[in-house]
Amino acid sequence: MTTHILTLTCRNRPGIVAAVATALAETGGDITEARQFDDTLTGTFFMRVAFRLPQEIGGDGGFRAKMDGIGTAFGMQWTLSPQDYRQKVLILVSKFDHCLSDLLYRQRIGEMPMDLVAVAGNHPESALSVRLPDDVPYHHLPITRETKPQQEAEIRALVEETGAELVVLARYMQILSDEMSAWLSGRCINIHHSFLPGFKGAKPYHQAHARGVKMIGATAHYVTEDLDEGPIISQDVEHVTHADTPEDLVAKGRDIERRVLARAVALHLDRRVLVNGSRTVVFGK
Amino acid sequence: MTTHILTLTCRNRPGIVAAVATALAETGGDITEARQFDDTLTGTFFMRVAFRLPQEIGGDGGFRAKMDGIGTAFGMQWTLSPQDYRQKVLILVSKFDHCLSDLLYRQRIGEMPMDLVAVAGNHPESALSVRLPDDVPYHHLPITRETKPQQEAEIRALVEETGAELVVLARYMQILSDEMSAWLSGRCINIHHSFLPGFKGAKPYHQAHARGVKMIGATAHYVTEDLDEGPIISQDVEHVTHADTPEDLVAKGRDIERRVLARAVALHLDRRVLVNGSRTVVFGK
Amino acid sequence: MTTHILTLTCRNRPGIVAAVATALAETGGDITEARQFDDTLTGTFFMRVAFRLPQEIGGDGGFRAKMDGIGTAFGMQWTLSPQDYRQKVLILVSKFDHCLSDLLYRQRIGEMPMDLVAVAGNHPESALSVRLPDDVPYHHLPITRETKPQQEAEIRALVEETGAELVVLARYMQILSDEMSAWLSGRCINIHHSFLPGFKGAKPYHQAHARGVKMIGATAHYVTEDLDEGPIISQDVEHVTHADTPEDLVAKGRDIERRVLARAVALHLDRRVLVNGSRTVVFGK
Amino acid sequence: MTTHILTLTCRNRPGIVAAVATALAETGGDITEARQFDDTLTGTFFMRVAFRLPQEIGGDGGFRAKMDGIGTAFGMQWTLSPQDYRQKVLILVSKFDHCLSDLLYRQRIGEMPMDLVAVAGNHPESALSVRLPDDVPYHHLPITRETKPQQEAEIRALVEETGAELVVLARYMQILSDEMSAWLSGRCINIHHSFLPGFKGAKPYHQAHARGVKMIGATAHYVTEDLDEGPIISQDVEHVTHADTPEDLVAKGRDIERRVLARAVALHLDRRVLVNGSRTVVFGK
Repeated sequence: MTTHILTLTCRNRPGIVAAVATALAETGGDITEARQFDDTLTGTFFMRVAFRLPQEIGGDGGFRAKMDGIGTAFGMQWTLSPQDYRQKVLILVSKFDHCLSDLLYRQRIGEMPMDLVAVAGNHPESALSVRLPDDVPYHHLPITRETKPQQEAEIRALVEETGAELVVLARYMQILSDEMSAWLSGRCINIHHSFLPGFKGAKPYHQAHARGVKMIGATAHYVTEDLDEGPIISQDVEHVTHADTPEDLVAKGRDIERRVLARAVALHLDRRVLVNGSRTVVFGK
Repeated sequence: MTTHILTLTCRNRPGIVAAVATALAETGGDITEARQFDDTLTGTFFMRVAFRLPQEIGGDGGFRAKMDGIGTAFGMQWTLSPQDYRQKVLILVSKFDHCLSDLLYRQRIGEMPMDLVAVAGNHPESALSVRLPDDVPYHHLPITRETKPQQEAEIRALVEETGAELVVLARYMQILSDEMSAWLSGRCINIHHSFLPGFKGAKPYHQAHARGVKMIGATAHYVTEDLDEGPIISQDVEHVTHADTPEDLVAKGRDIERRVLARAVALHLDRRVLVNGSRTVVFGK
Repeated sequence: MTTHILTLTCRNRPGIVAAVATALAETGGDITEARQFDDTLTGTFFMRVAFRLPQEIGGDGGFRAKMDGIGTAFGMQWTLSPQDYRQKVLILVSKFDHCLSDLLYRQRIGEMPMDLVAVAGNHPESALSVRLPDDVPYHHLPITRETKPQQEAEIRALVEETGAELVVLARYMQILSDEMSAWLSGRCINIHHSFLPGFKGAKPYHQAHARGVKMIGATAHYVTEDLDEGPIISQDVEHVTHADTPEDLVAKGRDIERRVLARAVALHLDRRVLVNGSRTVVFGK
Repeated sequence: MTTHILTLTCRNRPGIVAAVATALAETGGDITEARQFDDTLTGTFFMRVAFRLPQEIGGDGGFRAKMDGIGTAFGMQWTLSPQDYRQKVLILVSKFDHCLSDLLYRQRIGEMPMDLVAVAGNHPESALSVRLPDDVPYHHLPITRETKPQQEAEIRALVEETGAELVVLARYMQILSDEMSAWLSGRCINIHHSFLPGFKGAKPYHQAHARGVKMIGATAHYVTEDLDEGPIISQDVEHVTHADTPEDLVAKGRDIERRVLARAVALHLDRRVLVNGSRTVVFGK
């Protein structure tokens, strides 16, 4: 028995669940977890199903073949993969490595099922406080205003060479070009160090301090062409007081950022996040 | 088109979702929300489905008839009712009426879809700070150690006369007898003013203060024979400090209690809570 | 023994605490709670002291006389009042009365030590779901674009006649004119139904839904000339999901708004909030 | 100008603050932060003052000499040390190293101002997933039922040799003997993986799952003779659902534990925690 994850989205209409559930029942599948969402504003349907199958999923008459038919009939976008599939991940970082360090730890203890193919950054590896695992290469990709196009081309090459399916901007402090953002759209998660949509742009904790807010937060979102406007996956906050300096906010922010990014990446790896225009559908447990 | 809510539980086995979804598809139903849970520890399956139907749900060939067959085939316990069905609710209270006041307000503004058939308490109505709506009778049911059996018989009679489907103990400070608890089991929600399982018994905030905890909480649970051991529906907490006196904890506790109880009652009324032995399955949004 | 509250602010320099504490010691005072904050960015000092005095606070040689001298010597702004002093409060409301209802309840059970001198709104009293206490008058002050100056003059007159020391905008859905805001500056608390600085302006929950945020919040702040830019007193948030409709956000928001506003008003009444330019110093317990 | 931290506790009586503030004013000190707490239940007074002094703190007529006099006059217990004083810390660990890893990271980036003198554990260093800094020795101190007294003697020796002022039990899964607990009392912080006082004893997350709670938590407390009954420093919680397995709770628990322990250790290092019998006074920012 292997467990598989099916995700799908299509125009909503009656019979979708029946079609999928019947195909599963006919091939001996046993649904272990299912979530669905019917966006009545746009008429779009979203679903995630985890199921056990006693046999090969492919082949004539197998579940994949049935899903081909269902997908065509309903005009679905769908994905199907074993639950234990490990995505290839590339992490980009600058000097602050609290998020990187956290992701590495979680992977090391088996909490974050990903294949870390490389870490790259615009500072030399020696700028990091954390030591990378021996089998994870570090790529130093320095950047200046003038060399930005070349540097981004190097990142693209790295994504292609490593086959990275997900790029994580773990406090990568460079603003991606529109082209690069578009190219990575839907397969790149960024952690923004503020509770969006408040405090877009640079030095959000200093902005937050100046405004005198009583809570600060962080936001993990998919990268899209629109800077800081991508679909939000996860957010969290903490209370702060008048006595917290901007530096205190930065320190508190590190804790929020790392847990928000880790949560977003884990949800993504578990195929629990579906994009719905400028928003996300998150099928948490 | 009317929306209906189906809840069911049975031994887990393949084909349950397919059977239900196919029956819905065949009768023109359109699933708008579905959640399921497969308790692998006990092999029990739980499901809640909200769906729209263009026609009468009953009659030969209707969905209810199909569910009769499916329910028998799978050995299910199931319920089926219109989404806008308003349960009859009886609230029991003592002197502290913050939870009662909150439930009344939520009902008044349309947030809590229930039919409040009566409020009863062991103190006279004048002990309450809140004024009941004109159409809700108050029953003063005083109690002493000696008259407890008679008083509980009066509550039973009230439940039966009013047809109350849910009894809410909104800080009703009397301990129900085992018989009474058993009789109400599964249709009675209590708010316990502590974060169970800590601080069972009397004066939990004073216990919490004496222990020097840094957070206090409240717990809404179904009443069962075992005092303070019923299936938990909802819990929440707040931070406290060394400077909070027991009275401060009581005041903070009022806020926690009323929101935890309101949430539990709302989840119950929306048929989002299924009992799983000594635990609950809560299909939140 | 009476307990008094002293608050003060001045340019920071050594000796402030010593001067105050010595004056208290010399007059037989016993400090029960003291908080201070030294804003190193602006060089401003803030302090709140609660103390018991066995005698009259006034008179020659009394603590108030000593504070006169200290206040002059250090160039302080300071206030001194008995802890049990009850401020006169005017509440403004529109149609949504969840915050009003909550404040009324808290006052009724003794949790919110204020003298409610009146409630006023731009809708008739019958638009409210809550019933006012018999001794609290309701003033219907309708407003149109044309009559706005007159209506605001009526509010001013009401503030002056009632001697209201604090005006609470409990979801009063009218935008005050700049003059009115300036006139009320520092003695008027507004609840904004968003987690400022995100979603300023109208229909913030609909904005939040459209943006796809995963948390919503509310902000209580002092009213100043700058709309939605006044010093923040209190904020809080709750998690939301993709399945929450704008109406769900509005409902969740009601809970956040009422607790954030209640907390801000309670802090203000307890003289725990000092304004520090566009920010606040909040001396919580 | 050097900043110093003074903490003190004594029987409450008028004049304490005046005495200390006057001594500071006379020696040119400038208070930058002060918190106090008057425990009216026990009549005990607690205070923490941070202040800048332009000169040596010692010597005749210096602040330390004045505090000697004040301390004697009021019967105080007091401590005085430079703010940048780094305590010597020994961390004990077993196989689960998420708390250790987190503390190491925080120290590395300068967030946790301690001198880590050693790490010791009952498993070999190879059982850890994290690599220790090169200058921090690891001591393997295996333990069996029979060798417990000897092993604890080794820990004592390690504490004495290294001069450790604080011992952190970072998920050290051995129960200390009563003698050892008493010996470490007040200078040893433990992280208990439950929201005390609920779920004392072994496997608290499995207990929590069996009970069906909707939130889990962790508790950092000082070690005392009474197992799991020491004064609580910090607690936090997270929501869980019916779908979370015991293993999910353990994983969520790791996040709670590491942040609760880090917070407690940081508060302690910053001399913000004073013990008040079986409770603590925590002077947070």
